[in-house]
Amino acid sequence: MDEKDTTRLEAFSDGVFAVAITLLVLDIKLPHADVTGKLLDNSELWHAIFEQWPTLLAFVSSFFTIGIMWLNHHRIFKHIKHLDTPLMFLNMLLLMIIVFIPVPTSLLSEYIIYPDQKTAVLLYSGTFFAMALCFNVLWRYASHKGRLLGKDADMVGVERISRQYLFGPLVYIVALGIAWINTPASLVFNLLLAIFFALPDTPVRIGKKEPANQNLYKDG
Amino acid sequence: MDEKDTTRLEAFSDGVFAVAITLLVLDIKLPHADVTGKLLDNSELWHAIFEQWPTLLAFVSSFFTIGIMWLNHHRIFKHIKHLDTPLMFLNMLLLMIIVFIPVPTSLLSEYIIYPDQKTAVLLYSGTFFAMALCFNVLWRYASHKGRLLGKDADMVGVERISRQYLFGPLVYIVALGIAWINTPASLVFNLLLAIFFALPDTPVRIGKKEPANQNLYKDG
Amino acid sequence: MDEKDTTRLEAFSDGVFAVAITLLVLDIKLPHADVTGKLLDNSELWHAIFEQWPTLLAFVSSFFTIGIMWLNHHRIFKHIKHLDTPLMFLNMLLLMIIVFIPVPTSLLSEYIIYPDQKTAVLLYSGTFFAMALCFNVLWRYASHKGRLLGKDADMVGVERISRQYLFGPLVYIVALGIAWINTPASLVFNLLLAIFFALPDTPVRIGKKEPANQNLYKDG
Amino acid sequence: MDEKDTTRLEAFSDGVFAVAITLLVLDIKLPHADVTGKLLDNSELWHAIFEQWPTLLAFVSSFFTIGIMWLNHHRIFKHIKHLDTPLMFLNMLLLMIIVFIPVPTSLLSEYIIYPDQKTAVLLYSGTFFAMALCFNVLWRYASHKGRLLGKDADMVGVERISRQYLFGPLVYIVALGIAWINTPASLVFNLLLAIFFALPDTPVRIGKKEPANQNLYKDG
Repeated sequence: MDEKDTTRLEAFSDGVFAVAITLLVLDIKLPHADVTGKLLDNSELWHAIFEQWPTLLAFVSSFFTIGIMWLNHHRIFKHIKHLDTPLMFLNMLLLMIIVFIPVPTSLLSEYIIYPDQKTAVLLYSGTFFAMALCFNVLWRYASHKGRLLGKDADMVGVERISRQYLFGPLVYIVALGIAWINTPASLVFNLLLAIFFALPDTPVRIGKKEPANQNLYKDG
Repeated sequence: MDEKDTTRLEAFSDGVFAVAITLLVLDIKLPHADVTGKLLDNSELWHAIFEQWPTLLAFVSSFFTIGIMWLNHHRIFKHIKHLDTPLMFLNMLLLMIIVFIPVPTSLLSEYIIYPDQKTAVLLYSGTFFAMALCFNVLWRYASHKGRLLGKDADMVGVERISRQYLFGPLVYIVALGIAWINTPASLVFNLLLAIFFALPDTPVRIGKKEPANQNLYKDG
Repeated sequence: MDEKDTTRLEAFSDGVFAVAITLLVLDIKLPHADVTGKLLDNSELWHAIFEQWPTLLAFVSSFFTIGIMWLNHHRIFKHIKHLDTPLMFLNMLLLMIIVFIPVPTSLLSEYIIYPDQKTAVLLYSGTFFAMALCFNVLWRYASHKGRLLGKDADMVGVERISRQYLFGPLVYIVALGIAWINTPASLVFNLLLAIFFALPDTPVRIGKKEPANQNLYKDG
Repeated sequence: MDEKDTTRLEAFSDGVFAVAITLLVLDIKLPHADVTGKLLDNSELWHAIFEQWPTLLAFVSSFFTIGIMWLNHHRIFKHIKHLDTPLMFLNMLLLMIIVFIPVPTSLLSEYIIYPDQKTAVLLYSGTFFAMALCFNVLWRYASHKGRLLGKDADMVGVERISRQYLFGPLVYIVALGIAWINTPASLVFNLLLAIFFALPDTPVRIGKKEPANQNLYKDG
């Protein structure tokens, strides 16, 4: 059996993912009072909460994106068993982009309702594109000729992951394009992407019983 | 023996629970100075601290609710040994509600002293209701016909958990009803709920020696 | 061998300790500019940084107190191998006090330089006293007649811990008394306490070679 | 085989590193509106984002420094297998410096564009110097005559680490000197340092195949 060297790197990464995903909530500030400092009455407060929909939509979109990113990080580190310095750097770079996500999320939630202001949504989609790209490079570096995989790596599963991830950066470019036309639609598309990347397999296979698939979620 | 696939999902969830429960403290801001910027003297400061009771009560109520939620998450993942995509999504959704809790907590602590302002307490109780509902769906999905449980799952214990959790969403609706009549009473009721859900068994069994019970806390 | 049931409780507690100890830094705000918004020049900035000594002293005192508390939590959970509902609640209560510590720390750092304003330092010392008390109750509950300890528990070591912790709440009352006379002296005394509680043994034994001692730090 | 006593200390340290590295993002505040409260238009927003380059550069520099520090912490705790009270304190002191890093980072990002204002960059470089010094003392204390290492410690690897770390505090003094001449250059030098310390070996060896090297990343 091939021993695993990546346990503590995974634990550290899990910690960063968990803190980053939770810090997203700090941007949601429900209005406690109107400009004169008077507390809002019932109907004003409902109204103020509903007016926060852009913030809440951006929160949900970023939450699921980070969550799915964690899931995929988890999934590839099932296969990656060894570490070297470039992998360490690529992982650190990926974590830095993850940690950065609350910044464009916050900006986007301010600008989402102004359809002709595209700077915020470009920064938001651009961050996700950079994240997908970095994730791809990390995976390709680690899996190229099985460089950092275990000796017993399931090469069919590895190939399948490589094929699925190939589309990652491409679809985030599509998301960026949609953002140019309609910002809220782009966030919804982001959520659909999150669902797509959460699937353990390429969509074609959905519905087919394939027991080997479950190994993708196996720990250890 | 049935191998466990959920180790890293549990570690990530633990991280999110731990950060979310700690972020609750960020809403507690003791007044350092009066409106003119002068530091408060002893009696003014005591007075100002005591005036923070709604914030502190909301903090304690939310802290124990998240804590007990973690405890129950821990408890059901004793039995859940396998993962699939829907479980991943349900768990992510549950974590998102947990992470969101500081928002209604903060709002409630502002509005708790205005008995005719029900919006904040409705949002607070509604969040807890959504959390209990999501938790139930997650458990029922995983335990239905033993779908994601270990082959050696203690089906009596599983049944007992299902019976106990059945009341979860119901009692949070009761909490919501109480909130309509008296908001502080609803927070106290919330704490009692937390105690109820912390019990390893249905209340009827309390006091009876039942060694099998202790398995609910067993790791591994 | 007696199996350990407390692994995930320890992981969750570690997470809360780690977040709480890190959030202490959020209270340190170095002045970036004077009241007119102009950036400070070199000598003004040095002066402004040095004027932050109460905040920094309070930060160091709270950091080491939480750190030592984590260390002792670690130490007693070497011996505690089983869980029940009261222990869960006592642990949750202890974590709630730990999470609360940034609040009195922040207040103290404002009031430390006003020797006749005792409210803040009373709240600070009182929080530490409550923490020490809660920690004692938790340990006594778990260790009473070996209730939740492993069957193979080293009862001599357990007795020694009980003796050492007996003084915990008492010394924090002394700290409170010192605070009444001189607040900065009380913070320094707090640091000395942290050192005392970090020692693996009662001070009398220091210097003696006692190999069994090292077991106090053993994992697993 | 020599049992490892440091598992939970490493887990706690990982948590603190993960939270501290993520909190760095809280200092990045993109401007949402101009002074009159009006949202910025596209070109104004791009301009405002680009004007944040000092904040972003300071963020990247601190992120990688903390990340590399974690990596080296990980690396030396491959060899350290036992704990005692001084090691606990040195580790706590190191964590306190790590947690403090967001403070000088924030200050630096304000002052970086004023070349004659050296206070902020001195505090920043000074913090890194203190961190490198503390890390060195910790390693030397633990490795001196193999004090806290495993009985099976690879003494050649230990010696190599000692040699590499010897230069740590020295190069941070160089960074401090560069900061005196040119602040942004000093941050870039910091990043180069991070890369240097990430290397598993002294630079001379790079390129040589040395299989034993990979053990530096091995968990367990």
